[in-house]
Amino acid sequence: MPMNGFACKPPQSVTPNDFTFSGLNKPGDTANPAGFKVTLVTVDQIPGLNTQGLSMGRLDFGPGGVNAPHIHPRASEMLIVMEGSLEVGFVTTLPETKLITKVLQAGEAFVFPQALTHYQRNVGKGPAVAISALDSQNPGTQRVVAAVLGSNPKLPVEVVAKALQADNNVAAQLLSKFK
Amino acid sequence: MPMNGFACKPPQSVTPNDFTFSGLNKPGDTANPAGFKVTLVTVDQIPGLNTQGLSMGRLDFGPGGVNAPHIHPRASEMLIVMEGSLEVGFVTTLPETKLITKVLQAGEAFVFPQALTHYQRNVGKGPAVAISALDSQNPGTQRVVAAVLGSNPKLPVEVVAKALQADNNVAAQLLSKFK
Amino acid sequence: MPMNGFACKPPQSVTPNDFTFSGLNKPGDTANPAGFKVTLVTVDQIPGLNTQGLSMGRLDFGPGGVNAPHIHPRASEMLIVMEGSLEVGFVTTLPETKLITKVLQAGEAFVFPQALTHYQRNVGKGPAVAISALDSQNPGTQRVVAAVLGSNPKLPVEVVAKALQADNNVAAQLLSKFK
Amino acid sequence: MPMNGFACKPPQSVTPNDFTFSGLNKPGDTANPAGFKVTLVTVDQIPGLNTQGLSMGRLDFGPGGVNAPHIHPRASEMLIVMEGSLEVGFVTTLPETKLITKVLQAGEAFVFPQALTHYQRNVGKGPAVAISALDSQNPGTQRVVAAVLGSNPKLPVEVVAKALQADNNVAAQLLSKFK
Amino acid sequence: MPMNGFACKPPQSVTPNDFTFSGLNKPGDTANPAGFKVTLVTVDQIPGLNTQGLSMGRLDFGPGGVNAPHIHPRASEMLIVMEGSLEVGFVTTLPETKLITKVLQAGEAFVFPQALTHYQRNVGKGPAVAISALDSQNPGTQRVVAAVLGSNPKLPVEVVAKALQADNNVAAQLLSKFK
Amino acid sequence: MPMNGFACKPPQSVTPNDFTFSGLNKPGDTANPAGFKVTLVTVDQIPGLNTQGLSMGRLDFGPGGVNAPHIHPRASEMLIVMEGSLEVGFVTTLPETKLITKVLQAGEAFVFPQALTHYQRNVGKGPAVAISALDSQNPGTQRVVAAVLGSNPKLPVEVVAKALQADNNVAAQLLSKFK
Repeated sequence: MPMNGFACKPPQSVTPNDFTFSGLNKPGDTANPAGFKVTLVTVDQIPGLNTQGLSMGRLDFGPGGVNAPHIHPRASEMLIVMEGSLEVGFVTTLPETKLITKVLQAGEAFVFPQALTHYQRNVGKGPAVAISALDSQNPGTQRVVAAVLGSNPKLPVEVVAKALQADNNVAAQLLSKFK
Repeated sequence: MPMNGFACKPPQSVTPNDFTFSGLNKPGDTANPAGFKVTLVTVDQIPGLNTQGLSMGRLDFGPGGVNAPHIHPRASEMLIVMEGSLEVGFVTTLPETKLITKVLQAGEAFVFPQALTHYQRNVGKGPAVAISALDSQNPGTQRVVAAVLGSNPKLPVEVVAKALQADNNVAAQLLSKFK
Repeated sequence: MPMNGFACKPPQSVTPNDFTFSGLNKPGDTANPAGFKVTLVTVDQIPGLNTQGLSMGRLDFGPGGVNAPHIHPRASEMLIVMEGSLEVGFVTTLPETKLITKVLQAGEAFVFPQALTHYQRNVGKGPAVAISALDSQNPGTQRVVAAVLGSNPKLPVEVVAKALQADNNVAAQLLSKFK
Repeated sequence: MPMNGFACKPPQSVTPNDFTFSGLNKPGDTANPAGFKVTLVTVDQIPGLNTQGLSMGRLDFGPGGVNAPHIHPRASEMLIVMEGSLEVGFVTTLPETKLITKVLQAGEAFVFPQALTHYQRNVGKGPAVAISALDSQNPGTQRVVAAVLGSNPKLPVEVVAKALQADNNVAAQLLSKFK
Repeated sequence: MPMNGFACKPPQSVTPNDFTFSGLNKPGDTANPAGFKVTLVTVDQIPGLNTQGLSMGRLDFGPGGVNAPHIHPRASEMLIVMEGSLEVGFVTTLPETKLITKVLQAGEAFVFPQALTHYQRNVGKGPAVAISALDSQNPGTQRVVAAVLGSNPKLPVEVVAKALQADNNVAAQLLSKFK
Repeated sequence: MPMNGFACKPPQSVTPNDFTFSGLNKPGDTANPAGFKVTLVTVDQIPGLNTQGLSMGRLDFGPGGVNAPHIHPRASEMLIVMEGSLEVGFVTTLPETKLITKVLQAGEAFVFPQALTHYQRNVGKGPAVAISALDSQNPGTQRVVAAVLGSNPKLPVEVVAKALQADNNVAAQLLSKFK
């Protein structure tokens, strides 16, 4: 499904900067509860990505850092570990709901199929870094637990309880603590 | 992203049954914890859907029944309420994570954009029924909380805890109770 | 082939009404010569369908009512009979020009492949109702006999005669009576 | 909507003949009731068209010859008149059902949008020739009046009558004479 | 990869001229060093090609004329020789870099797969003419040697030398003479 | 334009190794005339890339190393410099044939639009490394000068001369020395 693009510049007026982005050499700041930081470079950062069906990102993980389960609704993703050890995984659709998981070392690549829930976790002792590619100029990201517990406004407690296979009290407590 | 199709029959040998499916007049059995039943008709049920980019489904809800938050990784969805009252909603991507929600009466239609987490809940006193359409012959379904708490094998407890913004004990308890 | 879409709203300003349409619970008025009425819900009715590759419709048939042979130039179609008995059919391309036809009861689904001439007819004693899905936000409809006999301005009589395998008098008579 | 392709040959074993078709220099035989002959070159004739999204054809018209109203369900078409004078036209979708028509001389090009009913007629004194291009390796062709009057088996007379806005007698007569 | 289109006219206001182009009957002027002239008809010439995924061209060759090796970055191409004898060829990707070549006579068709380097040469004694089709409304053309030797500004001499597998002197000489 | 994929495995039998590739941590061997080595990871290396529209690669450059001008016929490309300094550039289509060029440092990203001729060159004193992403599971690569001077069999000398805007002697000499 194509997303609407931006207007294309006439070829006479494009400049190198329309195709460039800087700053991916700086480690992302992982001093946050997740111990994780992503820097995505999409058509919002590089106008020349318009109509080109691509974006890339840099993922930084502190020790134990987690890129919590999420989807990209409009893209498949592939990543290469540049440094450290990453446990990665995605979950297949119903009825299997099978976890496909692997511990990757630097130099290993992995594929997360279109819009399936997936995560990465730093299982090494030092920082971990990965470079990822997505096949959309505007892939979008949705953390799936945050979509259920942390939307604005919140989902009804009964819906969350059914999703958790728990009672309303458990759901209410999780909802109330989620920032 | 196209999924691989099935081989096409030669036109001389196709029959009406290659394009037909029966049984959507029977209410789905909602005597289950979710109070909900979906009957999807995809290329697995109708070979003639091959290459046609479509599938449909019937959704049945008992009173209070919930189609828990889920995604279709390869499709957008549109539904029409045929009977009863349905609260429907979807959540937008980061950074907004905004819930777009509406209570629909019979005869009202709603759209769930490509692969975004969405749910439906029966908010009427009797049963509710909806007919939905998806723009893929093989849309797939993933319940997002089940993907996080109920995969096979289970996700690591630390990953689930980070996703829940909770500690490992809370995560472990939720994981252990999820069927 | 993608059709040009409309501009996308920024996520901050979308509202539930951008994704909703009301009124499909009312039976369409079939007090017309065809005994048939369709209510289509496309991107013209629901702005949120933009880029989502989908539309839906409600089809109402009085007894004997006919949705005359037509095509959707930019979509495949799938329908489910909700009430009554519908005879449906589509015709394959050259050289077979084979009619694939079936009588459907309530709860039966059928697929009309991309842009092939197809029709539906109420063969029951009461009204018939169907819900259909199309894999385009803007599928378009062309009644094929009306395109030949009822265009504005009219086609040349010689062209119509060749199409009918009839002489010019027969063609002229049919053309003159078509409204 | 993509149609399923054929298997691709390994690059080592492709030969020039996989990409070639001969014989379009011979005028098509127009000694038939329509005074028209088309020679289409699709993936059935050139295996190397597989996945390339293209086909071409040669159209020959005797004086007064007509390529009766038809659609290509999976393609747009563009043609260039090589010799003679062709009247061409297509009809837009509902609600306009507008005929867009033009008389073309040699060297003039015209576009028929995706799957809309269109025709060509030789309005010169000698033969007319055109070369056409279609954006599908397997565009398909359906003559729309033949689909209604000449399918195999025939459509019900009541459906044809409704389509013609005529009574059953007129429809039955047209159906019985159509070969 | 879809290119951004132009705005679509409302159906009420389209005219036949929106779908027409004239002048392809005039031979292109081949009195130039290449002995070759192409006249492309794209969405820039025919607004009605917008969203239709097609363009066409007329190719004229004087005796010995050459359409030098080039690519269309956004299209596959198919051509039919209308007059004369054309040697045609395309080169496959790495690692084969295989030349697929054929001498075509009038009435023969050939396919150049998506964005591969290809050429045509008049190997007859008189003029040669071909009609080509491309599956994009905006295919683009890049002469590959001109891209390396004749860009504006010029490529670095070291890059050109590596491409030529020659030393910098050879590269500098070729660069300096290329207009 | 979609390329034919491979058959999809049933979800029950997929394993993590279907989605994994190892070895991108080892520097490519740049002890060759180009001073350059690419390691591409496509559907040939990772079966799980099938239908996912993506591939990635690691590019290694010795000092002065050059990835000579080339195209990917079925993909756009984006790269991030991981180490060293890379001069990158692509050339636009006719009539501009404009070189868009930039010197990138580690952490800078650049986009090469669909199938346009582009190159990279190490302009630093040490090695340079980049990670690239392409939006096709099977992008293909064609070095454009090698396609003209080094195909198998060779192109006719007259065609090469026209491409070079040189005489046949110059063309013959370049052809004879190209390996």
